Amino acid sequence: MRPRQHPSYYIDGLRAGDRLVLSRAITLVESRLATDQALAQAVLEGVLPHVPPTSVRVGITGVPGVGKSTFIEAFGKHLTGLGKQLAVLTIDPSSQRSGGSILGDKTRMETLSMDPLAYIRPSPAGDSLGGVAHRTRETMLLCEAAGFDLILIETVGVGQSETLVHGMVDFFLLLMLAGAGDELQGMKRGIMELADALAITKADGDNAAAADRARLEYQHALHLFPPTGTGWQPPVLTCSALTGMGISALWELIEKHQRLMSQPNHDGTSVRTRHRQQQALDWFKTLLRQRIEQQFFTQNGLTDKLQAIEKQVINGDLLPSIAITKLFL
Amino acid sequence: MRPRQHPSYYIDGLRAGDRLVLSRAITLVESRLATDQALAQAVLEGVLPHVPPTSVRVGITGVPGVGKSTFIEAFGKHLTGLGKQLAVLTIDPSSQRSGGSILGDKTRMETLSMDPLAYIRPSPAGDSLGGVAHRTRETMLLCEAAGFDLILIETVGVGQSETLVHGMVDFFLLLMLAGAGDELQGMKRGIMELADALAITKADGDNAAAADRARLEYQHALHLFPPTGTGWQPPVLTCSALTGMGISALWELIEKHQRLMSQPNHDGTSVRTRHRQQQALDWFKTLLRQRIEQQFFTQNGLTDKLQAIEKQVINGDLLPSIAITKLFL
Repeated sequence: MRPRQHPSYYIDGLRAGDRLVLSRAITLVESRLATDQALAQAVLEGVLPHVPPTSVRVGITGVPGVGKSTFIEAFGKHLTGLGKQLAVLTIDPSSQRSGGSILGDKTRMETLSMDPLAYIRPSPAGDSLGGVAHRTRETMLLCEAAGFDLILIETVGVGQSETLVHGMVDFFLLLMLAGAGDELQGMKRGIMELADALAITKADGDNAAAADRARLEYQHALHLFPPTGTGWQPPVLTCSALTGMGISALWELIEKHQRLMSQPNHDGTSVRTRHRQQQALDWFKTLLRQRIEQQFFTQNGLTDKLQAIEKQVINGDLLPSIAITKLFL
Repeated sequence: MRPRQHPSYYIDGLRAGDRLVLSRAITLVESRLATDQALAQAVLEGVLPHVPPTSVRVGITGVPGVGKSTFIEAFGKHLTGLGKQLAVLTIDPSSQRSGGSILGDKTRMETLSMDPLAYIRPSPAGDSLGGVAHRTRETMLLCEAAGFDLILIETVGVGQSETLVHGMVDFFLLLMLAGAGDELQGMKRGIMELADALAITKADGDNAAAADRARLEYQHALHLFPPTGTGWQPPVLTCSALTGMGISALWELIEKHQRLMSQPNHDGTSVRTRHRQQQALDWFKTLLRQRIEQQFFTQNGLTDKLQAIEKQVINGDLLPSIAITKLFL
C-alpha cells in the first residue's frame, strides 16, 4: 500500500498541521470513488478524537454586491493579526454549477490567500445542496484537526445554503448594505431571523451617514422580533473593509457571544455544547431521511407512477391523502 | 347498508348544505377506524369535484392573550353581516392534550356560534401535529363543499401549528399587542415573516395611542424585510373588537389581496392558483415522507440500534455521516 492510501498518512499529517496533507484530505472527502470514500471515513474517524472543541465557527452571508470577499479579507487579516489560525470555506452554488470557483476565490481574497496563518478553500462542487453541506461539515472538521481554531464559512444568502450553514456554525453573521430596497429583492425571507448579528458594510466616505441610519433602523426592527432561544439579542454594527472601521468591534462581539454561550448551565453543559450536540443530531437525522428516501425512490417503476399521481394532485383531481393510499396500493 | 354507511348520504347532504351531515362528515374524517377511513375517502373523492375554487382561506394566529376569539367573533359577525357563509376551524395543541376544546370554543365565541351563517368547529384532537393539519385540511374541504365560502383557521402562534396553517391558507394574519416586549417572549421566531398582514388588537380607550405607535413601528420594521415572492408588502393595521374600529378595513385588505393574487399571469394561471397547487404538492410530499419514514422506523430491532447510534452522535463520538454507514451495514 502506498503511503497516501493509508489513513495514518492523513491523520499524522493533519495533526502536524501539514497544509498539503489537509488539501489532499479535503479532496479525498470530496471524492465520490468508493475506495476514496472508505479511506475518507477512516481518516475522519481517526482525527475526530483530536478535533479541539474550542474552535469558533462563524457563518457569513449576504447578497451579491454586499462585499463579502472584501469584508472577509479585512476581517481575516485582523484575525490572523491576532495570531488566529484561520480557515475560510466558501459555498457558492452558482460557481459550483460553472465548476470553476477555486481560482475565483483565491483571486477574490488575494492578500488573505498569501497569509501563512490563513487557509482558503472553496466548497467542493456538489450534485445537491445537501451534499455540499455534508462535505463542508467534514472539511471544517479536517481544518480544525489541522489546527485552524477559527473557521469562516461564506455563503451567498440567496438560496437555501445559508440555512444549512446556520446549522453548522456557532455564530451566524448577516452582511447588509445601507439603503433598504433593491438589495433586499434577492434576499431570502426568513434569513434575518437566523442572524446572530447584522453588519452594514461599506460604511465609509459618502456612505457612512446612510450606513449609520441603516444601523439604527435595523437595530430598532430587530427589537420587534422575538428573542433567540438563548436570550441573545442580535446587535447591528457598521463596518468598512476600506478603513477598517468596525472590524475589531465585530470580532469582540463574536468573542462576547462565545463567552456567554460557554457558561455552564445548571446541569453543567453550556448552551454552546448543547447547540453543537443538537446540530450533530440534526445532521444525522437529515442524512438518515435522505438515505431512507433514496432507498424508496430508487424502487423499480416508481418514478412514472409518482409523476402521474403528482400531476393529479397539482391539478386538484386527487387529494394528497388519497394519493398516498393509491401510491401504496 | 344503513344510509350513514353510504358515501352518497354525505355527498348529497354536503351539497345541500346540511350542517348535521357536515358535522357527521367531519367526525368521519377524524375517525381512526379503518372502515370509517375508507368511507371518509369515498366521501372526499365524491365532493372534491364540487368544492368551489373561489373560497377564501384565512389563517389567524397570535400568542395567548392577544384576543383571538374576541377578534374572530367581531370579524366573523362583520363577515356574516356581509352575507358570507363562514366556517371557523380552530387548532389548539394544548386543548387537544386536555381533550376538551369543543365546549371551550363554543363558549369563547358565543354570539358567532349562534349565527345561522357561521359554523364553528374545533380541530380534531390529533396524536401528531401533522395529523392535525391533515384532518384540518380535509375538514376545510368538507366545509367548502357544504357552501362555506370563507374559512378562518385559528392557531395559537407559539408552536409549529402556524407553519402548517400557513401551508393551507390564502392569507395569513398575525395578531399582535401594542408594546413589543413580554408578549413576544412566547412567539416563535420566523412567524412575522410568514404574515401577509399584522393587526394590532385592542386598539381602543387608553390603549389606542400605544396601538397606533406599535403600528408605525411594525410597519417600519416590515419594510426592512425582503418582500414576499408575490410582491405583496404586508401592511400593519390596528383594530378593536370592542368598538369595531379597523374590522371592515381588514376585510377590505384581504379582498384586495385576493384580487391581486387572482390576476392571471402571462401563462393564464394566477398566483393564487399556483399557490394552491404548490400547497397541494407540498402536502402530498409531506405525507409521502411521513409514510416512507413510518415504514422504515417500524422495522424490527431498529429502535434500539438507532438510539445507541444517536447517543454516540450527540456525544461527538461518531460523525453523523459515519453513523449512517454503520446503521445501514
